[in-house]
Amino acid sequence: MARVTLLESVHSPDDLKKLSAEQLPGLAAEIRDFLVSEVARTGGHLGPNLGVVELTVALHRVFDSPRDPILFDTGHQAYVHKMLTGRRDFSKLRREGGLSGYPSRAESEHDFIENSHASTALSYADGLAKANEVRGQDDRTVVALIGDGALTGGMAWEALNNIAEGKNRRVVIVVNDNGRSYSPTIGGLADHFATLRMTQGYEQMLDMAKSAINRAPVVGPPLYEALHGLKKGLKDAIQPQIMFEDLGLKYLGPIDGHDTAAMERALRRARDFGGPVIVHVLTQKGKGYAPAENHEEDQFHAPGAFDVATGEQQAKPGVKWTSVFGEEMVRIGAEREDVVAITAAMLHPTGLAPFAEAYPGRVFDVGIAEQHAATSAAGLAMGGLHPVFAVYATFLNRCFDQVLMDVALHRQGVTFALDRAGVTGDDGASHNGMWDLSILQVVPNLGLAVPRDATRLRELLREAVAVDDGPTVVRYPKGEVAPDIPAVGKVGGMDVLRRPDGDETPPDLLLVAVGAMAPTCCEVADRMADQGIGVTVVDPRWVKPLDAALVDEAARHRVVAVVEDNGRVGAVGDAVARALRDAGLDIPVRTFGVEQRFLDHAKRDRILEEMGLNAQGLARSLTETVSRYTEKTLEDEPA
Amino acid sequence: MARVTLLESVHSPDDLKKLSAEQLPGLAAEIRDFLVSEVARTGGHLGPNLGVVELTVALHRVFDSPRDPILFDTGHQAYVHKMLTGRRDFSKLRREGGLSGYPSRAESEHDFIENSHASTALSYADGLAKANEVRGQDDRTVVALIGDGALTGGMAWEALNNIAEGKNRRVVIVVNDNGRSYSPTIGGLADHFATLRMTQGYEQMLDMAKSAINRAPVVGPPLYEALHGLKKGLKDAIQPQIMFEDLGLKYLGPIDGHDTAAMERALRRARDFGGPVIVHVLTQKGKGYAPAENHEEDQFHAPGAFDVATGEQQAKPGVKWTSVFGEEMVRIGAEREDVVAITAAMLHPTGLAPFAEAYPGRVFDVGIAEQHAATSAAGLAMGGLHPVFAVYATFLNRCFDQVLMDVALHRQGVTFALDRAGVTGDDGASHNGMWDLSILQVVPNLGLAVPRDATRLRELLREAVAVDDGPTVVRYPKGEVAPDIPAVGKVGGMDVLRRPDGDETPPDLLLVAVGAMAPTCCEVADRMADQGIGVTVVDPRWVKPLDAALVDEAARHRVVAVVEDNGRVGAVGDAVARALRDAGLDIPVRTFGVEQRFLDHAKRDRILEEMGLNAQGLARSLTETVSRYTEKTLEDEPA
Repeated sequence: MARVTLLESVHSPDDLKKLSAEQLPGLAAEIRDFLVSEVARTGGHLGPNLGVVELTVALHRVFDSPRDPILFDTGHQAYVHKMLTGRRDFSKLRREGGLSGYPSRAESEHDFIENSHASTALSYADGLAKANEVRGQDDRTVVALIGDGALTGGMAWEALNNIAEGKNRRVVIVVNDNGRSYSPTIGGLADHFATLRMTQGYEQMLDMAKSAINRAPVVGPPLYEALHGLKKGLKDAIQPQIMFEDLGLKYLGPIDGHDTAAMERALRRARDFGGPVIVHVLTQKGKGYAPAENHEEDQFHAPGAFDVATGEQQAKPGVKWTSVFGEEMVRIGAEREDVVAITAAMLHPTGLAPFAEAYPGRVFDVGIAEQHAATSAAGLAMGGLHPVFAVYATFLNRCFDQVLMDVALHRQGVTFALDRAGVTGDDGASHNGMWDLSILQVVPNLGLAVPRDATRLRELLREAVAVDDGPTVVRYPKGEVAPDIPAVGKVGGMDVLRRPDGDETPPDLLLVAVGAMAPTCCEVADRMADQGIGVTVVDPRWVKPLDAALVDEAARHRVVAVVEDNGRVGAVGDAVARALRDAGLDIPVRTFGVEQRFLDHAKRDRILEEMGLNAQGLARSLTETVSRYTEKTLEDEPA
Repeated sequence: MARVTLLESVHSPDDLKKLSAEQLPGLAAEIRDFLVSEVARTGGHLGPNLGVVELTVALHRVFDSPRDPILFDTGHQAYVHKMLTGRRDFSKLRREGGLSGYPSRAESEHDFIENSHASTALSYADGLAKANEVRGQDDRTVVALIGDGALTGGMAWEALNNIAEGKNRRVVIVVNDNGRSYSPTIGGLADHFATLRMTQGYEQMLDMAKSAINRAPVVGPPLYEALHGLKKGLKDAIQPQIMFEDLGLKYLGPIDGHDTAAMERALRRARDFGGPVIVHVLTQKGKGYAPAENHEEDQFHAPGAFDVATGEQQAKPGVKWTSVFGEEMVRIGAEREDVVAITAAMLHPTGLAPFAEAYPGRVFDVGIAEQHAATSAAGLAMGGLHPVFAVYATFLNRCFDQVLMDVALHRQGVTFALDRAGVTGDDGASHNGMWDLSILQVVPNLGLAVPRDATRLRELLREAVAVDDGPTVVRYPKGEVAPDIPAVGKVGGMDVLRRPDGDETPPDLLLVAVGAMAPTCCEVADRMADQGIGVTVVDPRWVKPLDAALVDEAARHRVVAVVEDNGRVGAVGDAVARALRDAGLDIPVRTFGVEQRFLDHAKRDRILEEMGLNAQGLARSLTETVSRYTEKTLEDEPA
C-alpha cells in the first residue's frame, strides 16, 4: 500500500519537485504499474508511455510547466504527463466524457498540442520561443519532446533549421530515441542513431559522460562547453550524431532515458544554456513490462484491452478492412511485378507486412514522410512501376500538394489506399479521416473509389492499379468489415442495392450510398419501404468522376439524397448536387455527412448516431423530406 | 556572326558532346547573350538561368538525358536546358502557344518535372532510382539539380534521408548554391554554406581541389575517396558542410559552378561512384549580366520586359494588390505591437519588405518551409502574438494539414494573406491559385475573406487580424488592383453593388460576386439590365462562414448565381448552393468558376474569356438561364 501513496501524493508538478531523488525509482515503478493495469482495461498507447516514465518525471522536475511549455510530439506519449498534472482517472480513457488519449487544452493548462500528427512539435516550439523573444520573456524555456522517428518528417527539419537560427531563444529539444517510431526507424538518420547504439564504446562513453557531469560543480555554458568538448573528443571512438551541430544546434547526450538523476542533470544544463539545445535521450519502448519490451512487431504500441499476466490481447472477431487490403495486395503483387508498395513508417498498421514478406524488394518505408511518399511514388511511376501508397486517410492531408502537383498534374499512375477513412472516434479529432472525400474532389485527373464491402475493396483496388495515367484513391474505414452486400442490378457502372417494391413512377427517392454507409442506407430503404416510400439505393463505387448514368437515374426520382462518412462540406453530396445542377435538373437534393467540425473522442457508432447518420435518424429525416415533395407535387398537379 | 554559329549548331545533347572544351566558354557567352536579349523582350526568369549556364552545359555533356533523367527543382532554372535540347524559339515564352516557363513533358522527352513548387525534385529522384533498382537498370543515373534555398524545405530532407539509404542507387544531387533562394537563404543550413563561402581559405581550397582532380589519372571510387580525404583534411581550415555525410551521403565539392571543365570532372566522378552523391556547386545568380549580378533585392529573379543596356524594367501602371497589403500591414503594425509577419523565403514578392523595415524584429523568414510557417504561426499565437503569414495562394496547399490541425483545431488566431490567388496564367498550371477557396471550405473555425478592391483588402485584413480564436484567410489576385467599387447598400454584412432599376418583385437574379470578379459581375448586371433583366449584385466579403442574410436575400430572387476566380469544384458556389439546400430553399443556382483542370500557360484574361468568365460570356449564359426560369414560372402561373 505504501507504493500507491507516492503516486497519490503527486497532484501537480510542484508536488513532484518536493520528492527526493531516492523516491523517484519507486514513483516510476508505481507509474508503470498504473499504466499497465489501466491500459489493460481500456486499451490505449502503452509502449510509448512506458518508455518515457523517467523522462517525463525529469522534465516536470526541471522545468516550470506551463510557464515553460512542455510540448509532446505525437501526443500519445503524454499519459505520464497527464498523471503528473492532476489527471489520474484513466477509467474512461479515449471514451466519451473520459480523458483524451492525447493532450487536450480543455483538460489542462499544461497541455498545448492536441494534434496527433507527427513532427509538428518543433515548429510550435519555434513559434513559442519567437513569441517569448518578441515579448521580452527571456527567462522562459520552451521544451519539445520528439521521437527519433518523427525526425524523419520534413517539418521537423524545417523547424530545426529555424530554431538553430535563434541563437538566444531558449528551446530545449529532447529527442526520445527508442530506435523505432511505430516500426524501426528507417533512413540515413536512423543509421546514425543505430551506429551510436551499437558501438562497443557506447556504454563506456555513457559512464564517462555521467561522471563528468557529476564532477562538475558549476552549471552553465562553460560546463556545457566542457561537456561538449568531451563529446567531440570521443567522436572518433563512437561517432555520435554531429549533424545537429552542423546546423548550429548545441547537442547534449546521449543520456540514459531511464536514469532520472542523469536526465535531471542534463536537462538543467540544457535549460540554463540560454539558447537552443538538443538533448538526445535513449529509451526503451515498453520498458518495465516484459510483453511490451519483447514484442517484435510493436503490438504494444497501442493495444486493445489485454491480460496483464500474459500480455494476450483480446482477439476481435471478424475480418478487418486492413487485412482485406493486405491480402489483395499480395495477390496483385504475384500477378504484376510492376506493383510496388510504399508506407510512411506504418508497415504493419496499414496491412502491408504480408506484401513486404512476399516481395521484400518491392516495399519502401520512407519514414514519417508523407510528402516524400507521394512524390517519390510519382518518380516510381515515371520509372515504369505502379506504386500503392497505403496511408491513414487523415495523414493524406499532409501531402495534398504532392498529390495535386506531383502526381495528378504529371498524370502518374499512383494508387493511394486510404485506411481509417471516415469517423474513427476513439483517437479524437486529428485521427478522423473525414477530409479526403472533400479535398480530393478538386484534384484533376484523379479517380476516387469507395468500396462498401470486402468484395468491392478487392475489385476497386484492382481497378485502381489498372489506371496508369493519373492518381487513383481507394478509401475504407477502420475496423471490421460488414458482410458483403450483393448488387441486385446495375445502372451504368453503379451497383443497385435496393429497388422500390412497387412499380410506382417516379419512385420517391434515389439514395446514393457512399462506401461503408451502404449497410445503413439499405436499412433506411427497408424502413422507408415499410412506410410505403419507394427508395432506390445505388452505390456509385467510383465517386469521382461520377457515373454518367447518375443524372438520368436521378431524373427518374422525385428526391435525391447522398449519405457519406466524411465531412459533408465539398464531399460527394456536393458533387452530386453540382452534377445535377450543371445538367439543368431541378430536383431536390439532400446531403448527409459528418458535421464539419472537430469531433470530440467517442465511439464511432455513438458519434454517427448523434449526428443522425444511423438508420433511424436518416429514415426519419428522409421520410419528412420525401413527404414534403410528394405532397407539394400532388398539390401542383390537377386534383 | 561566328559566335552565333556555335549555339545554332547545338540541337541536342549529342551535338553538345561533340564540342571541344575550348569551345565551351564561347558557347556559354552565346547562351547568356541569348537569354538576356530574349528575356528582355518577353520577361521571364533571368537571374536563375544566367547562374546555371556552365552547370547545365556540363550536365548534358556528362549525362545521357533522357536515359539519365535530369530533374530541375523549381523548373524556372531550365531555360538553358531547353536551349540545349532543341528549343530555342523563346519569342512567345510563357505566352499561349509558346514555350512554357518551366519544363514541360509535352515539349520534350528531356523534361520530367513540370511543377514549379520547390523541394520536390529529390523525391522524384528517389522514386526514379528505386524504379531503376527494381527493374535492374543499374547503369542509369538519376540527376537532380536543387538550389540551396530549396534544401530548407522539409521534403528535401525527407528525400535525402531516403536517398542515403539506397547505398547502390545511382543518384547525383547537384546543390546549386548561390547563397540565396529568392532572397538570401535563411537558417542554420545557410549559416554553414555561408561559412564555407566566407572563409579566407576557401579560394585556396578550391584551387587545391581543382588541381587534385586534375592530377588524378584514374576515375572512380578510389579517386573519389582520395578527394573525399582531401576534403576531410581541410575540414578544420574551412569547415565544409559535413552534414550530408552524417546522413550517409557522399559529398563532393565545393566546385566553381562557372568552370565547365571542373564541373565536368566532378560530375563524371559522381556519375561513376555507383551510389548517391551530393555535388556542391557554387554559382552566382545573374552571372554575366551586370544589372542582374548587382541587384540587391533580386529584381532580376523574374523581371518583366527590360532595357538590355540599362537593366531598367518597364514600369507598370497602377497599384498592385501586393503593395496595398504591404502598406496596410505597416499601418497595422504601428497600431498593434502583437502583430508579426511570416514569409517562406518571399519577403519582397509578398510585399512584407516595408513591414520588415519598419519592425525588423517582428518578421520571420522561415525558408521555403510552408509547413513550418503555418505551425510556428500557431506557436506564435499561443505565445500571445498575432502572426500574418503572407504566401502565394498555390503554396498554401503545401501546409493544408498544418492549417487544419495545427492552427484551426487549436483555435489559434493566425491570419493567412494569400497573394496570387485565382488564375495567374503566365506561369502555368502550378502557379494558379485556384484551389484555396475549395480546400479551405472544409476547415472548421476558419474565416475566409475575399476583397473585391483595395479598400476592401485593407478593411478585411483588419477584420482578419482582429480574430483571435481561429485562423483567418484573406485572398487576393496577382497584379494591379482595379478601381474601388463602392457599395450602394448592405444586406446583413454583405455589400450590395448593384440593384435592379425597377421595383419588379421578385427580381430575376441574385448574383454573388466573389472578390476580384466583382467588376465583371457589375458589368454583367449592367448588360443584363439593358435587356430588362433585374439583377442584384452582392459581394459577401466573407465567404466563410456565409452571411446569415444570404438565404433570405436569395429567396427574394428567381435565380441565384455565384461567380468566382477559383476552381468551381467545392468552392463558394457549392457552399452557397448547400446553404440554400440546407435551408430547404428550392431555387435554381448556377455556379461559375474556373474549370477544374490543369490550365496551360496563357494570359489571365484570355483564360477567363475562354471559359466564359468574362462579362460577355457570363451575361449570355445568365440571360439564357434567367429566361428559362422566368418563362417557366410564367407558364405555371394562371394566364
